Amino acid sequence: MLVEKLKDYRIILASQSPRRKKLLEDLGLKFETLPVDVDESYPSQLKAQEIALYLSQLKANTFNFDKLCSSCLIITADTIVWQDGQTLSKPTDDRDAIRILNLLSGNKHEVITGVTIRTRQKTHSFYSSTTVYFKELSHEEIAYYIEQFKPFDKAGAYGIQEWIGYIGIEKIEGSYFNVVGLPVQRLYTELLSFL
Amino acid sequence: MLVEKLKDYRIILASQSPRRKKLLEDLGLKFETLPVDVDESYPSQLKAQEIALYLSQLKANTFNFDKLCSSCLIITADTIVWQDGQTLSKPTDDRDAIRILNLLSGNKHEVITGVTIRTRQKTHSFYSSTTVYFKELSHEEIAYYIEQFKPFDKAGAYGIQEWIGYIGIEKIEGSYFNVVGLPVQRLYTELLSFL
Repeated sequence: MLVEKLKDYRIILASQSPRRKKLLEDLGLKFETLPVDVDESYPSQLKAQEIALYLSQLKANTFNFDKLCSSCLIITADTIVWQDGQTLSKPTDDRDAIRILNLLSGNKHEVITGVTIRTRQKTHSFYSSTTVYFKELSHEEIAYYIEQFKPFDKAGAYGIQEWIGYIGIEKIEGSYFNVVGLPVQRLYTELLSFL
Repeated sequence: MLVEKLKDYRIILASQSPRRKKLLEDLGLKFETLPVDVDESYPSQLKAQEIALYLSQLKANTFNFDKLCSSCLIITADTIVWQDGQTLSKPTDDRDAIRILNLLSGNKHEVITGVTIRTRQKTHSFYSSTTVYFKELSHEEIAYYIEQFKPFDKAGAYGIQEWIGYIGIEKIEGSYFNVVGLPVQRLYTELLSFL
């Protein structure tokens, strides 16, 4: 069992996302959280999972190996929304949220989370990708969602666990929790083989 | 918007499942719940979605058309777990839960929900099917889950939204909320065209 394998580690989730925190709690792990502050820009030639992996590693790199406590295990993650060769970021305002949701409407996109695990001895990265299919959203549905849920902290301007996910998402292929923000099943398996 | 279309209806969810109730609430609908008591047996020649549809209709049939109030809209649902040509029901005891989870381990199965909508004028049924892929579960994981979560009220002996779903489910194809108990996106679309 993972909990036993991890009992000598001090686990640190380097993320301020309340959704990631909740997911890791529900996985049954005891951990602390730390903020991680990086400029989330990346080389322009990177694509899809390369971006998510790069950004999770960039966050992990803020924890220097030689300054890490000997029992520390850092987890960093970055989730991107990828559609038709471009990332859809967090919306800057109402108008931008409308633009992004219109791109998702009646279309499919990828939600990709890159995760990096790091101890003083080693580092390991992986990613999980989920395909999400939205129905055609009406103008009223988009306007109502933005007004009620203000999705300005969410890449792709939506939360699958919110109203828009309930009425708009026809199906997914991959991990649901990955779309929420952390591929917990994959993380569990990767931690078991990492340790 | 669905809420406006439904404003003259008295919606009744004929289900005691707290998970279905929560899902319908999060869809933004106002409704009442009523218990529905039927013998959940079905003709032996039925398979997969035929069973889920039959049982949702059986539940709807306990509401006679001529006794239904003119503004009433009844929603009934039945979720089955289907694997290798058989249904996996609610486990009868610890041993049965172990047997069922061992069948799911390292394998895929279908979660199928049949839904029936009924007013005094008409009735409509549909189903949603999601394929769920479990990793190989260890004996310790199965024993821990049954001990901690006692999944005796759940067809297939698991809840995707519980620990076993977090550590065990590699991916799904279809609607996540359908696995929780109600395909809310499909229900939303079907209600819009039914009314």
